[in-house]
Amino acid sequence: MRLNKNTETFIGCDGDYGKAEIVLFGAPFDGTTSYRPGARFGGKVIRGESCGLETYSPQSDRDLTEINVFDMGELELPFGNTERALDEIYAVQRKITADGKIPVMLGGEHLVTLPAVRAAVEKHPDLAVIHFDAHADLRDDYLGEKLSHACVMRRCHELLGDDRLYSFGIRSGTREEFAWAKEHIFSERFKLPLDGISAAAKRLKNTPVYFTIDLDVLDPSVFPATGTPESGGVSYNEFHAALALVCSEFNVVGADLVEYSPPYDLNGVCAAVAGKILRELLLSLKP
Amino acid sequence: MRLNKNTETFIGCDGDYGKAEIVLFGAPFDGTTSYRPGARFGGKVIRGESCGLETYSPQSDRDLTEINVFDMGELELPFGNTERALDEIYAVQRKITADGKIPVMLGGEHLVTLPAVRAAVEKHPDLAVIHFDAHADLRDDYLGEKLSHACVMRRCHELLGDDRLYSFGIRSGTREEFAWAKEHIFSERFKLPLDGISAAAKRLKNTPVYFTIDLDVLDPSVFPATGTPESGGVSYNEFHAALALVCSEFNVVGADLVEYSPPYDLNGVCAAVAGKILRELLLSLKP
Amino acid sequence: MRLNKNTETFIGCDGDYGKAEIVLFGAPFDGTTSYRPGARFGGKVIRGESCGLETYSPQSDRDLTEINVFDMGELELPFGNTERALDEIYAVQRKITADGKIPVMLGGEHLVTLPAVRAAVEKHPDLAVIHFDAHADLRDDYLGEKLSHACVMRRCHELLGDDRLYSFGIRSGTREEFAWAKEHIFSERFKLPLDGISAAAKRLKNTPVYFTIDLDVLDPSVFPATGTPESGGVSYNEFHAALALVCSEFNVVGADLVEYSPPYDLNGVCAAVAGKILRELLLSLKP
Amino acid sequence: MRLNKNTETFIGCDGDYGKAEIVLFGAPFDGTTSYRPGARFGGKVIRGESCGLETYSPQSDRDLTEINVFDMGELELPFGNTERALDEIYAVQRKITADGKIPVMLGGEHLVTLPAVRAAVEKHPDLAVIHFDAHADLRDDYLGEKLSHACVMRRCHELLGDDRLYSFGIRSGTREEFAWAKEHIFSERFKLPLDGISAAAKRLKNTPVYFTIDLDVLDPSVFPATGTPESGGVSYNEFHAALALVCSEFNVVGADLVEYSPPYDLNGVCAAVAGKILRELLLSLKP
Amino acid sequence: MRLNKNTETFIGCDGDYGKAEIVLFGAPFDGTTSYRPGARFGGKVIRGESCGLETYSPQSDRDLTEINVFDMGELELPFGNTERALDEIYAVQRKITADGKIPVMLGGEHLVTLPAVRAAVEKHPDLAVIHFDAHADLRDDYLGEKLSHACVMRRCHELLGDDRLYSFGIRSGTREEFAWAKEHIFSERFKLPLDGISAAAKRLKNTPVYFTIDLDVLDPSVFPATGTPESGGVSYNEFHAALALVCSEFNVVGADLVEYSPPYDLNGVCAAVAGKILRELLLSLKP
Amino acid sequence: MRLNKNTETFIGCDGDYGKAEIVLFGAPFDGTTSYRPGARFGGKVIRGESCGLETYSPQSDRDLTEINVFDMGELELPFGNTERALDEIYAVQRKITADGKIPVMLGGEHLVTLPAVRAAVEKHPDLAVIHFDAHADLRDDYLGEKLSHACVMRRCHELLGDDRLYSFGIRSGTREEFAWAKEHIFSERFKLPLDGISAAAKRLKNTPVYFTIDLDVLDPSVFPATGTPESGGVSYNEFHAALALVCSEFNVVGADLVEYSPPYDLNGVCAAVAGKILRELLLSLKP
Repeated sequence: MRLNKNTETFIGCDGDYGKAEIVLFGAPFDGTTSYRPGARFGGKVIRGESCGLETYSPQSDRDLTEINVFDMGELELPFGNTERALDEIYAVQRKITADGKIPVMLGGEHLVTLPAVRAAVEKHPDLAVIHFDAHADLRDDYLGEKLSHACVMRRCHELLGDDRLYSFGIRSGTREEFAWAKEHIFSERFKLPLDGISAAAKRLKNTPVYFTIDLDVLDPSVFPATGTPESGGVSYNEFHAALALVCSEFNVVGADLVEYSPPYDLNGVCAAVAGKILRELLLSLKP
Repeated sequence: MRLNKNTETFIGCDGDYGKAEIVLFGAPFDGTTSYRPGARFGGKVIRGESCGLETYSPQSDRDLTEINVFDMGELELPFGNTERALDEIYAVQRKITADGKIPVMLGGEHLVTLPAVRAAVEKHPDLAVIHFDAHADLRDDYLGEKLSHACVMRRCHELLGDDRLYSFGIRSGTREEFAWAKEHIFSERFKLPLDGISAAAKRLKNTPVYFTIDLDVLDPSVFPATGTPESGGVSYNEFHAALALVCSEFNVVGADLVEYSPPYDLNGVCAAVAGKILRELLLSLKP
Repeated sequence: MRLNKNTETFIGCDGDYGKAEIVLFGAPFDGTTSYRPGARFGGKVIRGESCGLETYSPQSDRDLTEINVFDMGELELPFGNTERALDEIYAVQRKITADGKIPVMLGGEHLVTLPAVRAAVEKHPDLAVIHFDAHADLRDDYLGEKLSHACVMRRCHELLGDDRLYSFGIRSGTREEFAWAKEHIFSERFKLPLDGISAAAKRLKNTPVYFTIDLDVLDPSVFPATGTPESGGVSYNEFHAALALVCSEFNVVGADLVEYSPPYDLNGVCAAVAGKILRELLLSLKP
Repeated sequence: MRLNKNTETFIGCDGDYGKAEIVLFGAPFDGTTSYRPGARFGGKVIRGESCGLETYSPQSDRDLTEINVFDMGELELPFGNTERALDEIYAVQRKITADGKIPVMLGGEHLVTLPAVRAAVEKHPDLAVIHFDAHADLRDDYLGEKLSHACVMRRCHELLGDDRLYSFGIRSGTREEFAWAKEHIFSERFKLPLDGISAAAKRLKNTPVYFTIDLDVLDPSVFPATGTPESGGVSYNEFHAALALVCSEFNVVGADLVEYSPPYDLNGVCAAVAGKILRELLLSLKP
Repeated sequence: MRLNKNTETFIGCDGDYGKAEIVLFGAPFDGTTSYRPGARFGGKVIRGESCGLETYSPQSDRDLTEINVFDMGELELPFGNTERALDEIYAVQRKITADGKIPVMLGGEHLVTLPAVRAAVEKHPDLAVIHFDAHADLRDDYLGEKLSHACVMRRCHELLGDDRLYSFGIRSGTREEFAWAKEHIFSERFKLPLDGISAAAKRLKNTPVYFTIDLDVLDPSVFPATGTPESGGVSYNEFHAALALVCSEFNVVGADLVEYSPPYDLNGVCAAVAGKILRELLLSLKP
Repeated sequence: MRLNKNTETFIGCDGDYGKAEIVLFGAPFDGTTSYRPGARFGGKVIRGESCGLETYSPQSDRDLTEINVFDMGELELPFGNTERALDEIYAVQRKITADGKIPVMLGGEHLVTLPAVRAAVEKHPDLAVIHFDAHADLRDDYLGEKLSHACVMRRCHELLGDDRLYSFGIRSGTREEFAWAKEHIFSERFKLPLDGISAAAKRLKNTPVYFTIDLDVLDPSVFPATGTPESGGVSYNEFHAALALVCSEFNVVGADLVEYSPPYDLNGVCAAVAGKILRELLLSLKP
């Protein structure tokens, strides 16, 4: 695996790999993005702008300097070869998982979640996935391609089986995707309902969970810098409450934050929003 | 009438004029804009960026491919001659209306609504107008001009008479405009109240309605790219509920979407928001 | 004091100094900004873009042309000398206060509030401060500096003593700042609660109050163009209600609006938001 | 005539009308712009950003504080009524000319030159026009309109007759325009040749000259913020030499600077370029 | 082959395929871009903004309405599968070539040139390539990938053999690339020398030539919106002269214009520059 | 000295301090900037975007991987205290100089050059300064402040004495500055003349030289992202030739690159230009 350590470290995450309970890394891949590319720069910019953040969260009353996170930097992924890129992500995920640490991955586009789920389900065969997103991502193929951001949850379902995928916030897709969802996954449309999350937690209790967050679940007024902005999403405060609930109710064994596309973040606000979400996510995990 | 067909077609709107029940066209006019111009490019950009949208709406469970919309393209309007531009818009509106189809017009600035209402009221003498906007647009003249975006609803009132104009969301105007409104029109300030819309529907029942949407009724956080952004507007979800209610409760015989100004849409999010609103509007009309 | 009168006047504020009950001026200082500078241009741009606003407010049913506000323009402050800049602001504040008028200051960064509070507390020894902000600004020093935007409320506390500073909306700071706040000031986290403001008003009744508004108290979706955007803030409508309540419940003897940074306001929306807030503030004060 | 004096004054131009030899004013009109509007804000922004300039020019070794320029501010022109707007510009031009002063006008779009030339030719029947531009602007009509930026030089020719219009830098137009030009005007294509200007000066010697500068004569790399950027233009230094030559060789009795469109000047560089050009123009005129 | 005809047609290129001597199409692929993606939108935006151009070129005294160009629109290429995308481009190139027409392709990134050269060399085994670029693009592989924009000219060389590739303007690459170039290709560094082009024409006389233009050969001041801007390039006028010379001296049987990346073209100037270059290219080819 | 090592390293500069002959570091200070701030982010962004550059320079035929440069990262400077910030820069400069290495500093604004020259002149009492800039920077004070970017060369002159400061490219200043320059320094206006540089080299031969480059010496078309853009500057190629000449003709013992302001670099091109200039500077020094 090729690592690009020449990146700034996310604020307060300069721990040691050996002692770290959480390992952060970036997967700068956006090769199947169909509309607006640029998510490849997401992890780099979130790190670089994290100097504008505090390490302390008044909401959770925790501080990044009090936990142990190691920031590996960004992977060096090939351009133009989807399979090789996914293989390299898989290798890192498997290594971190094998070492008993929680991987937290910064995308990149949503397809990077597939190798992460693959590694997680190998370690935890009863894995479930909690999925925050505006888009269903349940197509069987997209313009003939099976490996596409638009198909990533369909591919994850093939690894998980029915009733293991819980999607929240979905407000875009084809008629076929919504029909398919009704039969195979749990899908809560349009919002991140706290009671829906609690209900899921009761059903899944103690099950290991992979938590994937497509930032476009937020309303574009809050988070415009994504590949495919989709109106009707949640506010930051609704998002924050749902994130905190997922982390407290579930046994999260891996997580990611995807689809932040810096070229569309002209005033830099999304870097600040995504950085704060990453801080809150790291502080809320319970290794 | 000069038509510029050399534009991209709005997604899923490649129907045939003969069979179409709804006809979409653009009126690229912003000649009386007093603050920030650019709305002339609104229709062109909404079409061009519609490739980022799905044709299916999970909210209404309908799909643009299942209805019959014909996208005529953009009119070719003269620059610098307000009267001629309005005449050309009027001619198209009258033709579509005469052919028994519902015209849906993409602005341009708000003054383009005047010839649309003129054509509609000729066909439907009992016409009422539902008006979503941040600004009253009720001045008698603006710097001496009677034909101005700031006067458009006052001009419409001259065609309609008292109690036929229902304005929602208004939060800006002069003291005189608000005083005049109290006597002549129904005006709901600051919001798009669902019960207010229902009440209006009861009073107007079965009356044909023209539905004009100035996109600045949305809060600038949701829709910054307008000529005169005005804080205190509604969220996308509030807007969507009100739009759906208007389309289901009223007999809408014509509609428009105005005041999207692409030069101020630097990250392209408003193109996505406006495109989704157009899709929802088209799917909600009942030809 | 050096004044730069070569600026546009805020709409409707072309009163005469002698008759004016409110005096508006700008303090174009951002010398201690630690993250994104540019607030020096805040007052200039708010004035320049105020031509897009109406003088009338339908919410308060008042009009700027009906009250008496004098806009002095912008101070000419030295660059690179914090103490001298604060001294010049202090001199103007003291003069306006001595003349029995209410000073309303446009920042600039938040440190400009310190000389304003100094002048106000000299005139009104029982002064309290109402503080809207996302950040606590309660550090004792920042990288060794006592005069820093990050310390401004700590410095104000030194002038006021315990229980005279009421902070609302705070959602960022160090663990130490929050611990210190618990002992020395009233701090309402995360929101601008109307009942909290009313409760404060009861405790402080008739006390003269200085009202400082850091615009980053708004959510970045509403107001992105600040030095340190911080998610989780209030909407415009929540903000407006709180501002109106402060002005009606308290005896406001001075006020400011700080931290609007035009270089990050690429579509100009924050100029419109800040301008409207300034109009509402001016119309709500009771000289 | 309605004047908006609520603008910043161009640096060093705070003279008195009575004593002034040069009078600067703005004509914020862009009503016939066919492609990208926004030139209405040109004069306002050039003034506002002039604080970044020095009053002294090392090239001409003159200083704005040593000459007498009065900056009237911007006209208040009606929106949407081309004829009335041109009439108001004409009235101001005639007044300044009648008072024996040199008018220097900031556009706005190029059509504002027409009333300026009208006023100048009334005073000086043997007037010639020196025209720097990328576009011929010689159409007889544009989409049926005679009053259009694309026709402005054709309209001026009607006032001047053959051999009185000298166009330099032209690199865009229709085949018909170029054919017409060959018969009726002097047109130097693609560049601002110093010897061509000198040759013209010999032919026109002592003739009063109106000097109109469409800023798109500069290459878009130098000046991107115009309505219709056109590659292949001159560099700033070539432009400067030509401007200085025109001012020294001709008897310039009026001048303008048009087609700066601030909405496309995202990094503000064109404000600085246009401001410097205005300074150099003012310093080079010989009242 | 899947074609997306739902695009605007380049100005004056609405010919008929049967009669057309030149066929224009877009290859919206940027899957191997290593730095800043977005070239996928190049062709679409060049077409969409071509309404700001004239069809007539005063430089060549020709008009697009007088020649016969058919604009096919944009290919629909799969995302994330480089080989399939190249195959689809190859199929179109072969078809157009087989029909005896000159293909002119709008990128996309530079790798799209490979299938174009493949099709051209099959038809014309003695093909040479004229290559305008800032970058050598001669790596043998890039992060292990053979199919990369950074290797495209190396891959073309494999099809052509030594002494058939003529590169001009090159100013970036590795030490290895420059060493390799010295042995296998003709490479003129840093500029587009007219005499160098003429010399090449003499050596290649009557040979069919494929002409590939990476727009980053222009200096970033002229053309900033590319994936990898590289200082030290040529001006527009130098470029234009070289383009005209290539088209007049060589027998050009195919051409492309690549690496315009609209997300970095915030003021839209590069759309105008690229559109003008395309017009000049089309007018200069001699079918 | 506080160092912020949490930055990306400039490409190819990951040498070891002990072995390094050149030491690179950033001085993120812009506290006296009078117009547009933001230069504090210059060094950070140049490093971050250097991944888009090659380490090899075809112009000098050298490669960064073949020399020994150590990138220390950015200093942590206090905000709002000019003297302390300059003291910290001085300490670093003195340390690097004492260790026999060449310091290369990334600004920040131009005032950071003062402590660098102070350290250099202590080590080399016969030091001369070569100064590339658009602005004279020779005021005695600016709004009463002696320590200002607008005075930096006047302050350096106090350390150096007459005839030790050689300024090139100057095209802006007050009449007084130019008069003063005539008596005390060598100043070549408007350009970077190769023969002027050679002449200076002859006069100064073997003298140690500090080389300070204000990037606004480049024309704003080439480098818009500076605090005070000034038309009439040099092209990249002219700049490159002059830089190479200075490095080959003089004994450069220290250098800096100042006044790149990222907030005004919306398309990122200036990051690429400044990065290439830094590479060329590093490769051209002769330790």
